Amino acid sequence: MRVGDKEFRTVWMEHDLVKMIHQPLLPHQFKIYVSKNYQETANAIKNMVVRGAPAIGATGAFGMAQAALQFRGTDKAKFDAYMENVYQTLASTRPTAYELFHAMGIVRKEIRNAPLVKEAQQTAVQKAQEYANESVENCRKIGEFGERLIRKNSNILTHCNAGALACVDYGTALAPIRIAHQNNKNIHVWVDETRPRNQGSKLTAWELQNERIPHHIIADNAAGLFMQKKEVDIVIVGADRIATNGDTANKIGTYEKAVLAKENKIPFYVAAPLATVDFNCKSGSDIPIEERNAMEVQHMSGWNEGKWVRVRIAPEESPARNPAFDVTPARYITGIITEKGVLKPSQLKKWNRFK
Amino acid sequence: MRVGDKEFRTVWMEHDLVKMIHQPLLPHQFKIYVSKNYQETANAIKNMVVRGAPAIGATGAFGMAQAALQFRGTDKAKFDAYMENVYQTLASTRPTAYELFHAMGIVRKEIRNAPLVKEAQQTAVQKAQEYANESVENCRKIGEFGERLIRKNSNILTHCNAGALACVDYGTALAPIRIAHQNNKNIHVWVDETRPRNQGSKLTAWELQNERIPHHIIADNAAGLFMQKKEVDIVIVGADRIATNGDTANKIGTYEKAVLAKENKIPFYVAAPLATVDFNCKSGSDIPIEERNAMEVQHMSGWNEGKWVRVRIAPEESPARNPAFDVTPARYITGIITEKGVLKPSQLKKWNRFK
Repeated sequence: MRVGDKEFRTVWMEHDLVKMIHQPLLPHQFKIYVSKNYQETANAIKNMVVRGAPAIGATGAFGMAQAALQFRGTDKAKFDAYMENVYQTLASTRPTAYELFHAMGIVRKEIRNAPLVKEAQQTAVQKAQEYANESVENCRKIGEFGERLIRKNSNILTHCNAGALACVDYGTALAPIRIAHQNNKNIHVWVDETRPRNQGSKLTAWELQNERIPHHIIADNAAGLFMQKKEVDIVIVGADRIATNGDTANKIGTYEKAVLAKENKIPFYVAAPLATVDFNCKSGSDIPIEERNAMEVQHMSGWNEGKWVRVRIAPEESPARNPAFDVTPARYITGIITEKGVLKPSQLKKWNRFK
Repeated sequence: MRVGDKEFRTVWMEHDLVKMIHQPLLPHQFKIYVSKNYQETANAIKNMVVRGAPAIGATGAFGMAQAALQFRGTDKAKFDAYMENVYQTLASTRPTAYELFHAMGIVRKEIRNAPLVKEAQQTAVQKAQEYANESVENCRKIGEFGERLIRKNSNILTHCNAGALACVDYGTALAPIRIAHQNNKNIHVWVDETRPRNQGSKLTAWELQNERIPHHIIADNAAGLFMQKKEVDIVIVGADRIATNGDTANKIGTYEKAVLAKENKIPFYVAAPLATVDFNCKSGSDIPIEERNAMEVQHMSGWNEGKWVRVRIAPEESPARNPAFDVTPARYITGIITEKGVLKPSQLKKWNRFK
């Protein structure tokens, strides 16, 4: 993505460093976070320095490669045990995003199959880089397939951030939007602010503003009103994990928008690479839902006089609940925009790579 | 309502002063705002020092009485012209809440009918006081009728603040909840934070915490998840204006909750005095919807190191839209809890006092 006069990816690897856009500082500060070892990479995922399922997947793969590179010695058995520990550390950061496990699984398999440590180190880096590049290419294809669904002069609603920042580049839900804008389709985007972490108003709005794509931020509460008033033509969101039957876990509030879209006869699309599909999950009830710290609901972070300030927005003694994701049943989903085309939820099982 | 060891109403009149709980300072500071003249009272309504349809209604009536008292002279024609200007000033503060017009209309009618200024002044004060007292009594009745709808061990979802702070006392949606708690029904309340102004996490949570009623604050996005998981047994909200057919304008996001409740087969109740019903409105499309400043969406106010701080939570250049209310069509409403009992939306027209 273009930031100022430079091109950036959300996450990349240089030597044994994993570098990423420091997302909690956006939109007010643009900085690069440099992770020096796999523990720091794991913490960056856990603390959401990087977030979004495809971005987390690539970061996990880079974390594996980084750890492999930093291993000293030639004992392959020791190396394998060490890498197993690395895998577990990185895997324990975020429970819902499936791409994390998918991407690390690919790197782990190659490492296990390599007979020598040196070979395993080389293949780990190569596979992680390939995974990131392929992820960008998949997002580009998602953008092309999805763009065909967007009519001229459309109002598009999106929730959370499924943009370049949620991926290695391009984005999933925002990829079709980017291309529709480039194709002069005269689109306008409603950006759900997406409480409690406001990835909509902080990240999606920042991306759209960077590319001068017309948009308005709205409170999550207002999406229904604009749907009811026929000011939303299509909804496109991302996904953190998709079950085999098409049930989709995504940022909390996605289910609300899906129900409202159905009630108002508005097409509701999920944009996600096939790597988001967990064929071990039959349906949404198998998907683990992360519950995050209540403080995210009780507080809000923002920019005040040139610095970040966290303010309390609830009584000191009131407890809060903070589920980070919800599951949208497949029956609310018009289609899933993948790198292989736009699929009906019921068509997903054909792509089961474990069959 | 009890605050510490004292009883308070949300708004009241002493001599020619209108006093009210300064709501934008809650939950972190408890102060009384003293309005010295009707212009200050109008500003207090406009700037939401006081908010909530029944509270706005009583404040409008007090503002009329205050202005009447402060008139110097005995020329009834001049007095009437002056009071008409007062009415227009107070009426222009908030367009959606119907009780404002209803309450001020009652006072205005009495003032017009009084032959002498002195008499008009006395009757204005008396009518405003009566209106406030009757409003409290109506909320108490709403509480009693509504409480019968709440089963033991219920999880109740509410949106925004339709509590004592939205009324003169007791509340509308919170009145049944208060009584159910007093009756040891072992209830628990889900408090939608209600962006953008967070009346849920700031005011409703504060009221519930004061009375030790078990509750959790949630992001507005999470209500759907808890409904889907069958952790919501009943939804009770307030109303700013109800059309003759039962369509109900209330805080932005109410429509979303109503659609989600219907989809999940959860009863959805509106609690409001009959003074909220605007029989001049046939349906919801006749109700004017206030759009407030975009800054409410782009910023958040909260408490930091002992003082209020407003932080920016969106890019500097991203625009926002901020409709303050939405209209929930009557078909989503199980019943309207009034001081006359629980009515079906279709039964409202029987209570038309203009027939």
